Amino acid sequence: MKSVGVAILGLGVVGSGTYKILRDHREFYRQTQGIDLSVECVLEINRQRALDLGIEESKIYDNIAEVVGNPNVDVVVEVIGGVEPAKSFVLAALHGGKSVVTSNKELFCKYWYELEAAAKRTNAGLYYEASCVGGVPIIRTLIDGMQANVVTSLTGIINGTTNYILTRMSREGLGYQEVLKDAQNLGYAEKNPTADVEGYDASYKLSILSSLAFHTRVPLDKVYREGITEIAQQDIEYGRDLGYVLKLLAIGKNDGGKNIEVRVHPAFIRQDHPLASVNDSFNAVYLQGDSVGDIMLYGRGAGDMPTGSAIVSDVIYAATHSDVKYATFKNTEHADKNVRFVTDFKSRYYIRLTVQDRVGILAKVAGVLSKYNISISDFLQKAEGVENIPIILITHVTSELSVRRAVEKIAALEDVLEVNSVIRVEG
Amino acid sequence: MKSVGVAILGLGVVGSGTYKILRDHREFYRQTQGIDLSVECVLEINRQRALDLGIEESKIYDNIAEVVGNPNVDVVVEVIGGVEPAKSFVLAALHGGKSVVTSNKELFCKYWYELEAAAKRTNAGLYYEASCVGGVPIIRTLIDGMQANVVTSLTGIINGTTNYILTRMSREGLGYQEVLKDAQNLGYAEKNPTADVEGYDASYKLSILSSLAFHTRVPLDKVYREGITEIAQQDIEYGRDLGYVLKLLAIGKNDGGKNIEVRVHPAFIRQDHPLASVNDSFNAVYLQGDSVGDIMLYGRGAGDMPTGSAIVSDVIYAATHSDVKYATFKNTEHADKNVRFVTDFKSRYYIRLTVQDRVGILAKVAGVLSKYNISISDFLQKAEGVENIPIILITHVTSELSVRRAVEKIAALEDVLEVNSVIRVEG
Repeated sequence: MKSVGVAILGLGVVGSGTYKILRDHREFYRQTQGIDLSVECVLEINRQRALDLGIEESKIYDNIAEVVGNPNVDVVVEVIGGVEPAKSFVLAALHGGKSVVTSNKELFCKYWYELEAAAKRTNAGLYYEASCVGGVPIIRTLIDGMQANVVTSLTGIINGTTNYILTRMSREGLGYQEVLKDAQNLGYAEKNPTADVEGYDASYKLSILSSLAFHTRVPLDKVYREGITEIAQQDIEYGRDLGYVLKLLAIGKNDGGKNIEVRVHPAFIRQDHPLASVNDSFNAVYLQGDSVGDIMLYGRGAGDMPTGSAIVSDVIYAATHSDVKYATFKNTEHADKNVRFVTDFKSRYYIRLTVQDRVGILAKVAGVLSKYNISISDFLQKAEGVENIPIILITHVTSELSVRRAVEKIAALEDVLEVNSVIRVEG
Repeated sequence: MKSVGVAILGLGVVGSGTYKILRDHREFYRQTQGIDLSVECVLEINRQRALDLGIEESKIYDNIAEVVGNPNVDVVVEVIGGVEPAKSFVLAALHGGKSVVTSNKELFCKYWYELEAAAKRTNAGLYYEASCVGGVPIIRTLIDGMQANVVTSLTGIINGTTNYILTRMSREGLGYQEVLKDAQNLGYAEKNPTADVEGYDASYKLSILSSLAFHTRVPLDKVYREGITEIAQQDIEYGRDLGYVLKLLAIGKNDGGKNIEVRVHPAFIRQDHPLASVNDSFNAVYLQGDSVGDIMLYGRGAGDMPTGSAIVSDVIYAATHSDVKYATFKNTEHADKNVRFVTDFKSRYYIRLTVQDRVGILAKVAGVLSKYNISISDFLQKAEGVENIPIILITHVTSELSVRRAVEKIAALEDVLEVNSVIRVEG
């Protein structure tokens, strides 16, 4: 039976989950995969953490050279996160001819080309299923399941923290700050929640997923990004009245040619869209292929065991497939010069205004919109006070730039007290 | 660039779709996969059908020996369906050392072990993603994406025809016969709809999927099967009142050891279950793994292009992975003798009765149920007439056998006119 030695760099949440899965399934993998997967060593400064997991003293290393120097290590699992020291460790492993499995979306989306080049030099494998959407096999699906298709769009709920927050805001009628605090106490959000709530985490994943889906490098700086910190509870409620659910969406589009659009922002989707019922910390990715049509993958986007499952899936894949797979495109630091990244993208828009007096005001607002060729598809007026009247409009498909310009003019109208919110409406 | 020659056996719906995908994406696959995939020949008695697709006269063969004898053919795509002549053709191709890609669920679930043995003898590949759930990459996910997990359950809506019928019955309040006729006219159901509506097609797929998920052969004759032909529109409505949606489910369960349960039958699921919103001809499979938790894959389960997408995905996989993959278990004609197939499975049950006089009748019914240790979780009484009163009960989890015995006794009660329906309630 083939023996495969694994080293785990970092015993945080995902590292510990990975260790437990490998430890508890060793006999199962012997039987079902015909391979003997053993954890040869772990790299962890906090020795107690390793000892608590039942790892022998002799297998707890404190520098990467030891890991690379261990001839029994075939696959190095990097679950440290962040750029450094993860990057140096991964490069050292690849230089030493060890295959690498990583869950590190930030490192991967920023330095993928560099890691891939290093892997190719020593013919080492490089696997990253766990970097995107936890246990959901989205990378494998893009590479080995939908590869017959020109993928034209990808719409994902790919950050668990923000989906948890938005689900609770929607379900319980609570405000953003209140739910965030609760999420932090429950461990669903970090103490510094910026990476999640400002959409960075989702942008990292979208950069990776759209690069694979569209067969060309989509660098992080091409991803338009907005977070959920400005979302008002009221907009979630008004949206529901109009048949919509608010989600933080990661959207990638490709016309099949050289035009690519990548953006992360809050958006309304129709209540009957399959993504609308993806709640709490669940994630999902909705894909469209030119042959297969619509596909959705749904599951846990984070957590020790789901992400550990993706890590170990990659370890087994590395051990059972001798064809080393890299990205199926020319992987470079910058985007291909022939690719055009669309910035003035098209969408429908939800606009909430507060107006002082409604007599004639709708006509004025509609007049401004019409000047920018924007037509209205839905309209909701809440007569909550006599003086401050909220008006909600949903537009037909129009361009981002037109909406921004129109909203500026609307805000300047005499009876308009405020343009409270402008939220995109997708799908 | 590596050239890969493909032969297509049968130009029916899926064969034609496969041909079109290969023809229209040749340059795309050269660019994205680095392989040149060409259709070397087709096996089709109806020459006109091939000519209409633009296939050259010289590439239209009429016997399998010609296909096997063509040295440029690397991969043989079998999309004829049914057991013979498909089986002979596939065996001939495998004997000739050609890799085979098939969408043939019936052939595959019945003779998988025989095909696999033949493939192993010549080291040919054997791929069958298209045999289950059309374009949804469920086979790849089980083999290469969830292989780190002990899969404990699999619940699928894996037949498009019955899901289309049930969706329309539910949405439009129509009866089974009426929707079936319409489905036949629209091409969603065959003239002889037995394979779909009686659950055979779903059973074939469940046999294949549960064999893979549970790493042991699950022969077709172990799958309990009930179709949708007896479903009354009224039950769909009453179920909705109680918060449930009716679907034809394929269910596989494994306790992680030697007990396996496989069944295809109509069942109610909660309206907020992710499978409940899988409508029309869409399919989905909901999986539970011990590490990854819950995962769902959703997409088109049939059709020329979605199934063609799965076929071509397998062709590319065959061409780009040199590790030939077979089933990851000992593939035999009969089930492993150590495996126990559960027949007295556990479920919740929806029971509809018509009673003559409701005074005291519920107490009597509950009394019978209680004798069999069955307790009631939901109760609905429709006072639609004075004489014939429908009563709907939903039980807590109990065993199939207990319910059958209890229902027999209930039917014999004096005031019970009829036990109209007994439908399982899952998830």
